[in-house]
Amino acid sequence: QIQNPCLGTEYIQSASYTDSSDDETSPRDKQQKNSKGNGDFCIKNIKQADFGRREIEIAEQEMPALMALRKRAQGEKPLAGAKIVGCTHITAQTAVLMETLSALGAQCRWAACNIYSTQNEVAAALAEGGEAHVFAWKGESEDDFWWCIDRCVNVEGWQPNMILDDGGDLTHWIYKKYPSMFKKIKGIVEESVTGVHRLYQLSKAGKLCVPAMNVNDSVTKQKFDNLYCCRESILDGLKRTTDVMFGGKQVVVCGYGEVGKGCCAALKAMGSIVYVTEIDPICALQACMDGFRLVKLTEVIRQVDIVITCTGNKNVVVRENLDRMKNGCIVCNMGHSNTEIDVASLRTPELTWERVRSQVDHVIWPDGKRIVLLAEGRLLNLSCSTVPTFVLSITATTQALALIELYNAPEGRYKQDVYLLPKKMDEYVASLHLPTFDAHLTELSDEQAKYLGLNKNGPFKPNYYR
Amino acid sequence: QIQNPCLGTEYIQSASYTDSSDDETSPRDKQQKNSKGNGDFCIKNIKQADFGRREIEIAEQEMPALMALRKRAQGEKPLAGAKIVGCTHITAQTAVLMETLSALGAQCRWAACNIYSTQNEVAAALAEGGEAHVFAWKGESEDDFWWCIDRCVNVEGWQPNMILDDGGDLTHWIYKKYPSMFKKIKGIVEESVTGVHRLYQLSKAGKLCVPAMNVNDSVTKQKFDNLYCCRESILDGLKRTTDVMFGGKQVVVCGYGEVGKGCCAALKAMGSIVYVTEIDPICALQACMDGFRLVKLTEVIRQVDIVITCTGNKNVVVRENLDRMKNGCIVCNMGHSNTEIDVASLRTPELTWERVRSQVDHVIWPDGKRIVLLAEGRLLNLSCSTVPTFVLSITATTQALALIELYNAPEGRYKQDVYLLPKKMDEYVASLHLPTFDAHLTELSDEQAKYLGLNKNGPFKPNYYR
Amino acid sequence: QIQNPCLGTEYIQSASYTDSSDDETSPRDKQQKNSKGNGDFCIKNIKQADFGRREIEIAEQEMPALMALRKRAQGEKPLAGAKIVGCTHITAQTAVLMETLSALGAQCRWAACNIYSTQNEVAAALAEGGEAHVFAWKGESEDDFWWCIDRCVNVEGWQPNMILDDGGDLTHWIYKKYPSMFKKIKGIVEESVTGVHRLYQLSKAGKLCVPAMNVNDSVTKQKFDNLYCCRESILDGLKRTTDVMFGGKQVVVCGYGEVGKGCCAALKAMGSIVYVTEIDPICALQACMDGFRLVKLTEVIRQVDIVITCTGNKNVVVRENLDRMKNGCIVCNMGHSNTEIDVASLRTPELTWERVRSQVDHVIWPDGKRIVLLAEGRLLNLSCSTVPTFVLSITATTQALALIELYNAPEGRYKQDVYLLPKKMDEYVASLHLPTFDAHLTELSDEQAKYLGLNKNGPFKPNYYR
Amino acid sequence: QIQNPCLGTEYIQSASYTDSSDDETSPRDKQQKNSKGNGDFCIKNIKQADFGRREIEIAEQEMPALMALRKRAQGEKPLAGAKIVGCTHITAQTAVLMETLSALGAQCRWAACNIYSTQNEVAAALAEGGEAHVFAWKGESEDDFWWCIDRCVNVEGWQPNMILDDGGDLTHWIYKKYPSMFKKIKGIVEESVTGVHRLYQLSKAGKLCVPAMNVNDSVTKQKFDNLYCCRESILDGLKRTTDVMFGGKQVVVCGYGEVGKGCCAALKAMGSIVYVTEIDPICALQACMDGFRLVKLTEVIRQVDIVITCTGNKNVVVRENLDRMKNGCIVCNMGHSNTEIDVASLRTPELTWERVRSQVDHVIWPDGKRIVLLAEGRLLNLSCSTVPTFVLSITATTQALALIELYNAPEGRYKQDVYLLPKKMDEYVASLHLPTFDAHLTELSDEQAKYLGLNKNGPFKPNYYR
Repeated sequence: QIQNPCLGTEYIQSASYTDSSDDETSPRDKQQKNSKGNGDFCIKNIKQADFGRREIEIAEQEMPALMALRKRAQGEKPLAGAKIVGCTHITAQTAVLMETLSALGAQCRWAACNIYSTQNEVAAALAEGGEAHVFAWKGESEDDFWWCIDRCVNVEGWQPNMILDDGGDLTHWIYKKYPSMFKKIKGIVEESVTGVHRLYQLSKAGKLCVPAMNVNDSVTKQKFDNLYCCRESILDGLKRTTDVMFGGKQVVVCGYGEVGKGCCAALKAMGSIVYVTEIDPICALQACMDGFRLVKLTEVIRQVDIVITCTGNKNVVVRENLDRMKNGCIVCNMGHSNTEIDVASLRTPELTWERVRSQVDHVIWPDGKRIVLLAEGRLLNLSCSTVPTFVLSITATTQALALIELYNAPEGRYKQDVYLLPKKMDEYVASLHLPTFDAHLTELSDEQAKYLGLNKNGPFKPNYYR
Repeated sequence: QIQNPCLGTEYIQSASYTDSSDDETSPRDKQQKNSKGNGDFCIKNIKQADFGRREIEIAEQEMPALMALRKRAQGEKPLAGAKIVGCTHITAQTAVLMETLSALGAQCRWAACNIYSTQNEVAAALAEGGEAHVFAWKGESEDDFWWCIDRCVNVEGWQPNMILDDGGDLTHWIYKKYPSMFKKIKGIVEESVTGVHRLYQLSKAGKLCVPAMNVNDSVTKQKFDNLYCCRESILDGLKRTTDVMFGGKQVVVCGYGEVGKGCCAALKAMGSIVYVTEIDPICALQACMDGFRLVKLTEVIRQVDIVITCTGNKNVVVRENLDRMKNGCIVCNMGHSNTEIDVASLRTPELTWERVRSQVDHVIWPDGKRIVLLAEGRLLNLSCSTVPTFVLSITATTQALALIELYNAPEGRYKQDVYLLPKKMDEYVASLHLPTFDAHLTELSDEQAKYLGLNKNGPFKPNYYR
Repeated sequence: QIQNPCLGTEYIQSASYTDSSDDETSPRDKQQKNSKGNGDFCIKNIKQADFGRREIEIAEQEMPALMALRKRAQGEKPLAGAKIVGCTHITAQTAVLMETLSALGAQCRWAACNIYSTQNEVAAALAEGGEAHVFAWKGESEDDFWWCIDRCVNVEGWQPNMILDDGGDLTHWIYKKYPSMFKKIKGIVEESVTGVHRLYQLSKAGKLCVPAMNVNDSVTKQKFDNLYCCRESILDGLKRTTDVMFGGKQVVVCGYGEVGKGCCAALKAMGSIVYVTEIDPICALQACMDGFRLVKLTEVIRQVDIVITCTGNKNVVVRENLDRMKNGCIVCNMGHSNTEIDVASLRTPELTWERVRSQVDHVIWPDGKRIVLLAEGRLLNLSCSTVPTFVLSITATTQALALIELYNAPEGRYKQDVYLLPKKMDEYVASLHLPTFDAHLTELSDEQAKYLGLNKNGPFKPNYYR
Repeated sequence: QIQNPCLGTEYIQSASYTDSSDDETSPRDKQQKNSKGNGDFCIKNIKQADFGRREIEIAEQEMPALMALRKRAQGEKPLAGAKIVGCTHITAQTAVLMETLSALGAQCRWAACNIYSTQNEVAAALAEGGEAHVFAWKGESEDDFWWCIDRCVNVEGWQPNMILDDGGDLTHWIYKKYPSMFKKIKGIVEESVTGVHRLYQLSKAGKLCVPAMNVNDSVTKQKFDNLYCCRESILDGLKRTTDVMFGGKQVVVCGYGEVGKGCCAALKAMGSIVYVTEIDPICALQACMDGFRLVKLTEVIRQVDIVITCTGNKNVVVRENLDRMKNGCIVCNMGHSNTEIDVASLRTPELTWERVRSQVDHVIWPDGKRIVLLAEGRLLNLSCSTVPTFVLSITATTQALALIELYNAPEGRYKQDVYLLPKKMDEYVASLHLPTFDAHLTELSDEQAKYLGLNKNGPFKPNYYR
């Protein structure tokens, strides 16, 4: 099924407010200490800590569930004794997660899962705070990348007992270099499609030696990462790059899964005229019932102002389609991979590329026609950082709860296998986000619970419910 | 999971255009023949056939998939040799189904699954058409009910080989009276919640002696019977009964499953201010993200103009709530059972009931306050016949395809068990409804199919996909 | 400008719950008395009073402003001494108006402004109540019509001093038969397009001998009669007549004035795909910005499922268009006149008309194609009584306030001319409807009022504001 | 009436992509020539011309009507001989206007109407193009400001015959310094509220010595600058500054004029729960019918996440309200002035201001509560450059047509007075924007035009129509 992996490893380039300063010294060669005299980290520039702290504070406002977990942790520390090694993007949002894990009692060491995505000022704030030992900067080399991971794991007198991974690189490194560490490790929490795939392969091959939790496929995360996230980020992504007015524009959305549904709903609400393409008759019928003309791409390609791919498929928009678009047509990708638009086919001598803004290229045909290509066909919302923090809050809370669950589970509850978050914890993640909306849940009476055959505290739906 | 069983056996009273004429002779005592001289049927009044035929023709316009099946059947007759005995509501829509089965080659005998729901004029048209032998009228006694079913089954020189049931009464009758018939029966198709439940019980008990197809739980039917159906029928049901203006009205919808989602979307679109109650935090969070205040019923009960239940639960609206509603508040049920509103609690001496229109009661408190109770708390859209024909078309097509599948399946494909319609046939039902919308499906290229690991002709989603 | 005159004299046929009993005696020949022994009325059947009272009570629920006026009238009686003669539709809603005028101190005599639209049971309730002397029944002859009006005016020992007219027939009758009555008459309140037109003609000709108030053109009434009313009544009108499902249907709406805007918004919200035709580029651009494809009728006529006219123009849909529509296409009129669809062109020998339901005709082409024509091209919402009571409440309140204003105005405020309701009273009508929604208005501070150059109590907008 | 003057002189700070380089030499002291050797301009840096040209080209894509005027001008040159002196913002959009005027035959000299709003790179592109003599840069002193204006007017051997002004400063300068120039000037086109106000004052005082065209109050401009512009720019403005997720957020919008209607519609569509405050009962009733709870600000101030002012009034949000807001509440202004939020009241010692991003301040209470104040209470959409180019296209086209009209009008058509653009030209502006949407206007037949009493080519509505 198609999905928009908001935090997946496809994340190429952050819209960080980070300076691209000309300080060319490698962080590895710098001696830095924070104001408490601690120097067990490696980042770009500790002086940016104040700015990074503000970004973290802004993020905290939209991550209520983690803040609620911190509050509860004033009494009990469910992660007391936990030694977590993590490998994720280093952003204001993941910083809120890290500092929450600390507040819950854990010791943390952290590396970046992507060489470009680190917000240097956030890394600085974390280093200054002192609770997470961070090894990451924007623009690492591949060698730097593995060096940072190694610095997290290979520590004198400290050994991790939990892994939080995004993409599987950290897990892979430990498997390769320090397999004996797994004896003390209680579990792995993995959130990316790719990383989960690797875990299932290990499991099939009988090589998975600790329990692993797949948080990518929890209901709450799926719904939020796709439908609700894309409903907002498609508008934001298009505006920030092109300032296009939506009213009256003709748009074709390829694919009517959750991502496509979100994009279509938003654009229709803003006064665009939206066409949909689909291969699956059931999703196609839903598009019809929701008020969208279902067409083949070739039927409308000459008339549309915007083309958006949301399929998870490849070569959905090919050169032939691009040749027929009208002047000024905007083309972008909200789907899974960066192959939905055949961008390679535009790298031919007769076409001129002109970079007009960050993430915006004009591709110019010999007759002067311009196509406006966004993010070179990569995921628009990741490339332009338009994923709302609240969506990331859902994911981060799910990760935190998965860590707590694995760390505290009685022997035998989890075997050397890949698990989905129990339905009840999925419901718990949702319930932690309700107070943000001042939302009041109704409780079942005993009589009603009996009538429905449910426990009063949930779970309320079968596991397969989506 | 909550559902609105549009054709379920809870169907109490049709808003038939049928006369309630004072002809008191029982149909069982009448001798009627159609214009071809055939008298193998038992209905109210053959003279109403013309009027019924017009209602059937109106229904045909909105049942494109069945009409498409008929067209294809001009060549092959996939039900040639099938002898189907059916027990469903007898309405214009089911008439289109019956006549389609005939067109596909089947011989049919039919009884009503409910003593009130028969549209007499439609039964007359079917009898006149001669292709379905119908035994049904509005206002049967219980004895009539079973007599009609028996007349369908117990025929000299004719024995059914397929069963189409809605509620399980027909199946039950054959089990009880003519168990040996099952030797020749190839399968049962059942569409109601209740009937499906009975089949699973038979199966568990090892007593199911033929394959059975559960069409109630097919994806297409679920989505249409709930979300899309209710989006339209809530408006229609409220308007027909109360003429209420939606703009600016405050409404509380209890339950945010598919039915609740449909009701909320429609009322919001019409300018109502909608509050939602929920027990499940995941559905609750969805309600928030969709722009609805999540409240407990007691928080808003004094201020709302309309209360709608969509929970599948019991005693969701109780006397205490009713006591606090404001004068003129409208109360109705779109959920599963007729117990969501505790109507029994209103049958007390101090309250006066006044029937102001069909399906509309004013319940009057001692201080003069009036509550407007619709359909006595039974399902509003069934009671007021506001289920769109197009929705019934999905169900009817699914039934027809299930009959074809069971009738033509090679030995051994189906055992003595209850089956869901194969995903691929579910997709086929959807695809048969696309031409209505002039919708054009995109086909996968070989390369794309390979990339996605899918067969080009589907199924396109896993079985659990909803 | 185009408008949908919800209460205009085009009102042909009420969807009354009135019996069409076979009692053929003319009301003029019957002797009837109400339970108090009063017989100064002439109606169909006094025995229906109870049923009519219930309909009035239902209407009262949705006419809050009139009920508020009644409450205030418990102290002062602003119409004490007023002798009002009225000529309007006799429906549950106008009954609430009449009884309000009585509560405000007026004596009333009333005739119907249309020979078909009287709800007999409501007339009975009014007669039984005794506060309004009613002369009206459904199905009057033209002679009856004038006889009823005369019975209202020509009374021994009673002379009207206020006129409330709808269509101008009452005013016309007094001008023609009893011109001297105008000496005592303080003013005329007229609400129809036609009646207002007649008054302006009288005024231009110097023949208007009392002040007249044009309530048709007040802001509140215009907005409600058109945008908000049509948004709801288009859905209701189509459902009651055809049971069509809106989801996925292709609809063309001719004209994008207020009526068209209301129809388009509702259908789009229900999942229809809506096309718009316009002649005015400004309205056309609005349609584009609101997300509708702007087309010529001929571009989409072959593909649409529903055609709705809202132009105020004539011959918008002509035979050539009708010839090209697809089988099952629904055609209806929500605009001003009954000439928007050239229905006359369908009265040709090769086409067969079949009445399938009340207000629904199938027009059948020689090749079997059926067009579903609603209300024979007359106004759909009037023909099918789908105008919400709340909309009528706005109009009725405006009428009541206009009567109060004219009756109590000091000498010289109004001359022998046609006036619009003062802006401030228009705002007052709106404010009387706010409590229904529990809406709380903000008051200007002295400082703010000064800053804006406004009186704290309004009017808040210039007269021309729409 | 409230309005959001998208291009008004309140424009404080452009979100220009312009460098804030440290080149401190005043442009007045630089000698620059373009590549053709022409130096009759004064700007920041001619080398930025290429970058500015790209911004202009992007803007051209969304200004179809001006491009259409250019195309038509290949034959006739309606501004041949026109010598236009202009004083507006210098942005990519006004650049498209200037170059269009050149293409229509005019000679142009241009100054900035605001010392901050000039996009230096666009000014460079204009200077390089050579068709408009530009005197403007970002960060002029007041002395620079008047010096630039003077350089446009006071030219050896060249005298303007048309004025295009935005704010009235240019007009004021000529009145003061070169009054005799008015002998040759054919007219003034003014677009700002302030400038129009000044012209009316001149007119009242009998001092207006040439015709002037008020383009601010044309229908098309009003609708677009308010409803359609704000529908999109409220979302964009909030996202760019705060990245807030809209789904589920509680928002109060103060004022339900066109601006408020646009904001409410957009936020409701994105899943926010929106409350409205109003002083005018008519607008209040519209808010109710559109589905918004009408409240006093104090009722909801403790619970809302976002506060938006759209009133045109002052002190709508005062310190007392700000004191009661919850932590993290976002406060911004979309209305007319910068006095709607009493920002001054926040400049007290106990509150800490923290600038977290451009246009974003956290105001921190002693207890740690933070209010997120955007653009210091000035207009959000101007401060953040979120006005869509297409909206500016409407305005620019109206200006161009007003110039053509005044320049070509026969003697006597316009006197020394302030005029609104003739309705027909307003319709023409709209019609020029229709091809963008591939929109096809319907034409009246002769018979229809006669029936409606209209000219087939318009105008189609009375002047007062809004």
